[in-house]
Amino acid sequence: MLVGIDVGGTKAAGVLVDMISGTVIDSQRAASNGSGSDLVTTLVGIVDSFAERSDKPISAVGLAIAGLVERSGMVRWSPNLPSAVDYPVASEVSQALGLPVATVNDATAAALAESHLGAGRGCDDFALVTLGTGIGAGLVSGGRLLYGAHGFAGEPGHSVLVADGPTHMTGQNGPWEFFASGNALGRMGREAKLGTTGEDVVAALAAGNDLAAEVFDSWCLEVARGLVNLIVILDLERVILGGGLVSVGEPLRAGVESWLGQLLPGALARPPVGVFLAELGDEAGARGAALLAEEGQACAT
Amino acid sequence: MLVGIDVGGTKAAGVLVDMISGTVIDSQRAASNGSGSDLVTTLVGIVDSFAERSDKPISAVGLAIAGLVERSGMVRWSPNLPSAVDYPVASEVSQALGLPVATVNDATAAALAESHLGAGRGCDDFALVTLGTGIGAGLVSGGRLLYGAHGFAGEPGHSVLVADGPTHMTGQNGPWEFFASGNALGRMGREAKLGTTGEDVVAALAAGNDLAAEVFDSWCLEVARGLVNLIVILDLERVILGGGLVSVGEPLRAGVESWLGQLLPGALARPPVGVFLAELGDEAGARGAALLAEEGQACAT
Repeated sequence: MLVGIDVGGTKAAGVLVDMISGTVIDSQRAASNGSGSDLVTTLVGIVDSFAERSDKPISAVGLAIAGLVERSGMVRWSPNLPSAVDYPVASEVSQALGLPVATVNDATAAALAESHLGAGRGCDDFALVTLGTGIGAGLVSGGRLLYGAHGFAGEPGHSVLVADGPTHMTGQNGPWEFFASGNALGRMGREAKLGTTGEDVVAALAAGNDLAAEVFDSWCLEVARGLVNLIVILDLERVILGGGLVSVGEPLRAGVESWLGQLLPGALARPPVGVFLAELGDEAGARGAALLAEEGQACAT
Repeated sequence: MLVGIDVGGTKAAGVLVDMISGTVIDSQRAASNGSGSDLVTTLVGIVDSFAERSDKPISAVGLAIAGLVERSGMVRWSPNLPSAVDYPVASEVSQALGLPVATVNDATAAALAESHLGAGRGCDDFALVTLGTGIGAGLVSGGRLLYGAHGFAGEPGHSVLVADGPTHMTGQNGPWEFFASGNALGRMGREAKLGTTGEDVVAALAAGNDLAAEVFDSWCLEVARGLVNLIVILDLERVILGGGLVSVGEPLRAGVESWLGQLLPGALARPPVGVFLAELGDEAGARGAALLAEEGQACAT
């Protein structure tokens, strides 16, 4: 059996996965707040209680973490989970359990899970782009996950779409995340007096509000703009949209696909790029971390 | 022996490479104008005359072509070499010679050559970015060349840095190539009344002209802006600058590196990215094509 845990800013969500079938046998959540040492105790507790309830032994653990995760397993930057930054979470969990622990960026883990079990099946060149509070990505090229030199690959939210544009919370001017995250949709909704959050725009869209449809379409254009840059660099066959905004469903997929067709250069020479919705929901990160633990890849400690 | 030929818009430049040592034994150029059929005759002629002058047999041929080159070997888009587009150049050359022929994008080939023999040695994650009339790139991630779904990976010149920016010859608004190609340097030089071409700015820079230094520094900023987007997506360890502008040397390398350090987000968490000059000059594409022919990879026909 394998354990994968998606370690977020407020909660750690674990799954117990059968190695043969890949199915999720058990799942569990716990608060992830407190110090680095508290976090280790929480994660060890999740694995221990899976072990108590399972009739087969656990052989490895994978941790999916939002932030810059080094291939060594160390988290170097994580605005949502400061307790894990520069703290030896993986090695302490490994020591406490006597098991190998792999650590990986959450979007990279989700891309692996979608590749094996979801919307990326049978596709060797795709990006999973998570549209939530921010923007994250996991990249598959030539059938392999891209980690980059330090494990930091797949941060297109920080790519700049408007040089000298508005200043984002990261200090950058005009990054994709400023224009196309869930937070950006909320800002566009406030400007149109549709509510205060991205969820308000989504609710008005679902209720058939015309102004909401217009705002949402403008936001889909911003999503497509960043995807164009990913596609011309990586020559993707598919784009898979994940994260909280996937709840919008087909209007999201169709809106982004339509703008992409209009913006992509060399469209006559290039086969169209398919836009898909992620299939694994909020378990993708944890399931991908379990897969990586099995493969012993990523940042095994 | 292997033959690599860099097939450009005006000339085809071939090298004969020893398979054991990797050294260039012979080289040859010919005009590349005319129809697709003329181009085939030219390329066969280059290989035939290498064969006449060599005491060992030639086992494979590689073609490096500027444009969108499908993994099948077909060129789908090439503004500089329209005769090759949708014409079965590789298969006709292969039939005429009775040899396998691999076809690949010229910047991808150059990246492979720099990886084995030049500024990319010992580095698993780098981009070779060619700064010439336009901007091209060859990408290495995790020690492997990236081809993408159709062989079109590495076209960051078409990534957009200023949405709704000035219209480029490709019809896109605000792509990197508009701001940071050799043509862009020429435009900036004309605006500053330093001459008519990028070469004029480079000559004035070499002569110690202060205004030229200022213009060149502004252009290095534009180069760095596009590199930031490549780096946050691919987590590169190195950037290797190639193409005609490499003749500028250290001022180019240092100018780009300085701006990159100021623009790269998460700089505290991320080790600095090294900026290097390409080492193989204008033979890189042909030598890389020969290496690919040897590996039988890319788009063997």
